Formats: sequence, C-alpha cells, structure tokens
Amino acid sequence: MTAISSQSRTWTRTVPIIEIFGPVIQGEGAMIGRQTHFVRTGGCDYRCSWCDTPYAVLPEDVRQHSVRMSPDEIVRRVQSLNPLTPWVTLSGGNPALHQLAPLVIALQGAGYCVAVETQGSIYRPWLETCDLVTVSPKPPSSGMNPDIDMLSRFVTLPNANLKVVVFDDADFAFARAMHLRYPGTPFYVQVGNDIGSDTAETLLKKLDWLANRTLADPAMCAAIVLPQLHVLLYGNRRGV
Amino acid sequence: MTAISSQSRTWTRTVPIIEIFGPVIQGEGAMIGRQTHFVRTGGCDYRCSWCDTPYAVLPEDVRQHSVRMSPDEIVRRVQSLNPLTPWVTLSGGNPALHQLAPLVIALQGAGYCVAVETQGSIYRPWLETCDLVTVSPKPPSSGMNPDIDMLSRFVTLPNANLKVVVFDDADFAFARAMHLRYPGTPFYVQVGNDIGSDTAETLLKKLDWLANRTLADPAMCAAIVLPQLHVLLYGNRRGV
Repeated sequence: MTAISSQSRTWTRTVPIIEIFGPVIQGEGAMIGRQTHFVRTGGCDYRCSWCDTPYAVLPEDVRQHSVRMSPDEIVRRVQSLNPLTPWVTLSGGNPALHQLAPLVIALQGAGYCVAVETQGSIYRPWLETCDLVTVSPKPPSSGMNPDIDMLSRFVTLPNANLKVVVFDDADFAFARAMHLRYPGTPFYVQVGNDIGSDTAETLLKKLDWLANRTLADPAMCAAIVLPQLHVLLYGNRRGV
Repeated sequence: MTAISSQSRTWTRTVPIIEIFGPVIQGEGAMIGRQTHFVRTGGCDYRCSWCDTPYAVLPEDVRQHSVRMSPDEIVRRVQSLNPLTPWVTLSGGNPALHQLAPLVIALQGAGYCVAVETQGSIYRPWLETCDLVTVSPKPPSSGMNPDIDMLSRFVTLPNANLKVVVFDDADFAFARAMHLRYPGTPFYVQVGNDIGSDTAETLLKKLDWLANRTLADPAMCAAIVLPQLHVLLYGNRRGV
C-alpha cells in the first residue's frame, strides 16, 4: 500500500508553472514555423547573462509568479486554448529540474506531440519519452560553464538535436567544438539577439554574418543556420 | 547494341543549366537553414506573374544564358565549389521538364543528398529517387491555373512536401484547399514577397499577418509557417 500511495503521489504531483500560452508559431530551432503551445516551468540552475525569460528563472520571480498545477490541470488548460494544435513545447527556466514524466504521458495521451527545450545540464529519463528534445548548451557569452560530458547522455536520445546561440567569435568556436564532438546529432546555430536594441535590419545583418561564418568553415558544413524569428517579430516573446 | 547505345546516350545526355552556385543557406521550406548547392535548370511550363527567376524561364533568356552540361560535368562543378556541403538542390525553371535520373544518381553516387523544387505540373519517375521533393502548386496571384489532380501523384512520394506561397486572401484560401485535400503531406505556407519594394520591416509584417491568419484557422493547425529568408537577406537570390 505504501508503494502504491507513493506512486500515486508522484503522478498527481504539481509543478510550478510560469505561463501556458498558444497556439503560436515556434520561432527557432528544429520546430521553426510549426504551431505549438508552450508550457513554461519555473526555476533554473543557470543564470545566463542574456536570459530572455528571467521571470522563469529568479527564485523570487518564480515564487511570486508561478502557480502549482497537476498534469491534468495543465492538459485541460492547453486543451482550452486550442485542442487541435499538434504540439506542446515544455520550456523554462529549465524544465529538466522537474519530474515531468506524468505530464508528458498525460499530454501524449491527449493526442499532443511533446517537444522540450533544455540546456542539457540535468538528465531525466522522462526526456526519452518526448517526441523532440532540443538541447542548447550555453556558449561563453552566457557567462555559464556547461558540463560538456553531460551532453553525451542527451545526444543518445533518438529525437535529440543540439542548438547553440551565437553572439560572437568565442560563441562560434564553442558551437564548432560541440558539433565536432557530437557529429551524429542534428546541429543548429542560431543568431543571438540583443533584445531592446536590435531592429529587423540589425537582426538580419547578424544572420548574414553567422551564415557566412558557418559557410566558410568546412567543419560546420552540416550545421543548420537559423534566426530567432520570435525575437524578430514579437520582442521578448517565444512565438506569435 | 542499339539498345546499349541508346541507353548510353540517355546517361550522357546534357541538360540546359542556367547556374550552379553554392554553398548557400536554403532560405525557405523544409530545408530552411540547411547548407546546399543549387543547380538551376533552364525552361519552364509556367509563367508566374511574380516569378523571381525569369532568366531561367523565358525561352530567349534560356537560349542565351544556359550551358548544356552532362551529369558528370555538373557533379564536377558542384564538387569544385565545396565537396563537403551535404545537399544539392535542383531548381528551375521547372527541373521536371528534364530527364534528370542520371544526374540524381551521379550526385548521390558522389555522396550528396538531392532535393528538388518543382511546381507539380509534370511528374517524372526520377523524383522517386530524390531525398526531398518540394512541390509548390502556384496560387491564384501567380496567374497560373494548376492541375490539382496531378498533385495526387506527387504526394505519394515518400519525401514529398507541399509548399504554397501566399500573397493575399485568395492565395490563403488556395493553400487551405490544398492542405485539406492532401492532409497527410507536410505542408508549408510561406510569405510572398514583393521583390524590389519590400523592406525587412514590411516582410516581417507580412510574416506576422500570415502567422496570425494560419493560427486562427482550425483547418490549418498542422501547417508550418515560414518566411523566405533568401529574399529578406539577399534580394533576388536563392540563398546566401
């Protein structure tokens, strides 16, 4: 009985949710252009200098702005937004801080495909059940020092892809090293944007720079170069 | 002997080539962000009002600017540009005007993946051997009247996707009808750009319009919404 109760507690356990919104168009990465809902969990083990969702990271913000929700409540909320949108993207903060197996199963049971975005600092077995896992190790400009060995667990996931945001030459060198280390994993480089100061013109100029930098480097010949359209279009908002 | 000679003639047959360039970043569709070479064949059975490559369409231009090349010559030219770039994209004009089986096999034999872009007006068995087939039926704003039934052959191809460029409401209705007719095929809607008059700002505004139009239509919930980055970034040039 104790075992069953413990199991039951796990499956109704609540998660701190910062926001649930959608449907929107995914503005970046492997899902670029696809319609998805977003479920943003609170809390993060990183403090990136250019983080675009500090309200989902800083403990005081998370305490103030998050609501604890069960998997069923989250599914019902997503369905109330639009039951037809095929994807739900779990983002953060770092969603891998949490035990999300029950949520992934509940969402898939309701017919959704589940994508997740994480920096690759914490591995969870529930990632194996997701339909797409975007792992974005943070480059030097973030001020973080990622554990590169940890990524070897992520890249064995069948639906994993690596995505590195690039602001400058040092970030590009970091991206290159990642790609060389894990050549079998689909690899995206993406323009880093200065939210607030960038215009459409400057963003496109940066994309041009990153494209030419990538094209000129034989080691990067299989890398996929993308902008962050959600920043281009909608300021600090992940999607439309 | 006659049969062998005839076969031999087929396999060394030349194709009118307008341009071979690369590597560039694919600016649109299912391959967005990927590095590819382009091989542009001359000649087209369509005369779209907003065609962005008239020099590959109009007979006088094709006669003046194309060079007849054999599959081997094309492969050697692509390899001289960059042997490491993984993809070669066959575009036009309409590449399906030509017998490109020998070229596809030669490119794949040299280690390249082959993508093709065609409007879906002419079916060729060699399309079945390509790694990706992008079929872009032309909407009302093009002034063309596509044979929709013909598309049923294309969508059975294992690596086919449909892509419709949208300039206005009538184009959107056309895209919607395509998607409803062939719901099992990955479906892209893409902003139509006015080359010469559009700026980065106006292009992004159009993308915003198309995104919101698509999000608001339940029948379009699985459609993928993308810009044409090559137009945004590089004027009338397919890629970087």
